[in-house]
Amino acid sequence: MTRFDVKILGCGSAMPTTLHNPSSQLVNANEKIFMIDCGEGTQLQMRKFKTRISKLHSIFISHLHGDHVLGIPGLVSTLNMLGRKGDLNIYAPKEIEPLFSATLEFFCPHREFQVHLFPLNDKEFNLLYENKSLRIYSFPLKHRIPTCGFLFEEKEKPRHIKREMIDFHQIPIHQIKAIKAGADFVTDKGKVIPNDMLTSPANPPRRYAYCSDTAYYPDIIPYIEGVDVLYHEATFAEAEAVRAQQTFHSTARQAAEIAQAAGVKKLLLGHFSARYTELNDLLREAQAIFPNTHLTFEGMDIIL
Amino acid sequence: MTRFDVKILGCGSAMPTTLHNPSSQLVNANEKIFMIDCGEGTQLQMRKFKTRISKLHSIFISHLHGDHVLGIPGLVSTLNMLGRKGDLNIYAPKEIEPLFSATLEFFCPHREFQVHLFPLNDKEFNLLYENKSLRIYSFPLKHRIPTCGFLFEEKEKPRHIKREMIDFHQIPIHQIKAIKAGADFVTDKGKVIPNDMLTSPANPPRRYAYCSDTAYYPDIIPYIEGVDVLYHEATFAEAEAVRAQQTFHSTARQAAEIAQAAGVKKLLLGHFSARYTELNDLLREAQAIFPNTHLTFEGMDIIL
Repeated sequence: MTRFDVKILGCGSAMPTTLHNPSSQLVNANEKIFMIDCGEGTQLQMRKFKTRISKLHSIFISHLHGDHVLGIPGLVSTLNMLGRKGDLNIYAPKEIEPLFSATLEFFCPHREFQVHLFPLNDKEFNLLYENKSLRIYSFPLKHRIPTCGFLFEEKEKPRHIKREMIDFHQIPIHQIKAIKAGADFVTDKGKVIPNDMLTSPANPPRRYAYCSDTAYYPDIIPYIEGVDVLYHEATFAEAEAVRAQQTFHSTARQAAEIAQAAGVKKLLLGHFSARYTELNDLLREAQAIFPNTHLTFEGMDIIL
Repeated sequence: MTRFDVKILGCGSAMPTTLHNPSSQLVNANEKIFMIDCGEGTQLQMRKFKTRISKLHSIFISHLHGDHVLGIPGLVSTLNMLGRKGDLNIYAPKEIEPLFSATLEFFCPHREFQVHLFPLNDKEFNLLYENKSLRIYSFPLKHRIPTCGFLFEEKEKPRHIKREMIDFHQIPIHQIKAIKAGADFVTDKGKVIPNDMLTSPANPPRRYAYCSDTAYYPDIIPYIEGVDVLYHEATFAEAEAVRAQQTFHSTARQAAEIAQAAGVKKLLLGHFSARYTELNDLLREAQAIFPNTHLTFEGMDIIL
């Protein structure tokens, strides 16, 4: 199976603590690294966890609060010092442009690569990026400022060939592609060998969804339905439900309700408020609704 | 004695490593905290080392390379979340103004305190700040872009009264101030009691100098002559002397030559290149010239 995993670099919220770094994570899809959010200190976390900075393909910024974006100038400076030549695409709310263009121009004037800023549409579900094995979408969340969630989705893969059956029927190589795509095989004598005798089903496409920051917002359910892993913010415990509502954040229980309603396979909680030195209450409250819930932590690897 | 000490938050150079953070340090002078440089992640270091963020008085930025300044937006955001009301003064090269005004306006639009930017003069020795016990000066360094060093200098203090002599001569309270300042006392009978019988010398004013980043630059010696502690960059070992010259940095040996020529009491080395996983060569090369040399490290406290 091709690689598809997530590394948590930071799962804290706006106020820094000694326990958590601000938001950032890396999705490694088939050895391309996509970054989601880039809080201050993200490049230091990449060093700490020995991630291959040179493999960074592009950056997706959910919204323009400082704890999701202030790590970009330092990261771009470092990429330049490391001799990066390939352009870097940043998908972010359009207001980033005047701010970061001037900053990057000032702090890395002699860059050997371009930084392309792609504005996000925070009103609807949108395809942002596509390669031969992956699609990345954005969708609207509900926060104090325009904010997007992201969906990473593998493309449908070809069926697995049963090598011994191919040999047995002496199937010519030029027909293999069609058979992987589901075609039957017709022998010289006109006999039809049905596809499911020649192949086994492909691995189902894996999907990962990121929802931070957001109030409780069931409108996102159609976008994340059935994903393998959902990362959903859980800034507060239920005792702070009013504060969650006021600040357009979610409680752990609300994250679990979304996970359950969307029928996801696994829920990861993150974006924890600085007020919590331990997170057992959040985990318990979420697991009461959705048992397959896990707390994230800096350095955590999630294999899809 | 009033408090006068330095805490190292970061003593690495531009490329982040797992060993060192980018430049930042705190000078605590009589319970006011002055920050020198503010690389990315400085606020996280303040948390880690449990420094009182609320006591931060002002910030002094040596020059506008990212590793000395990119921590400001996150720090200002956090000060705002912590409810700071008092204005914050930032002394920095004037080019910071358009960059940071827009950034701070965007990321902390509802700040309850003002950030005042004071442009540095990188051509001459300048008094930047003064209170009843301290003066802070800037002076020119020699780097690829305009860069200043900083000198923190206690003011001359009054002499110490010898309590028992004051009592013995029955000196009236209204004359004490003059005696602390060095005056003799004349008794009712016209007898002169010389001041050094009534007082002992004040503690000599303590001085701390910060020189980073800079090429080897003997022009700074008059400004830092005889300081108690000199922090001088030592980006490279002597084997990289050519690279040091090309990049307008210093070797450890050059830092020691400056310390020796200026007759300082103690030398601290910092701003270490990411290429060094251990620093014994730098220390040895400096100590061969100036024995009272020490390597800095994150979390180090220097009491003056």
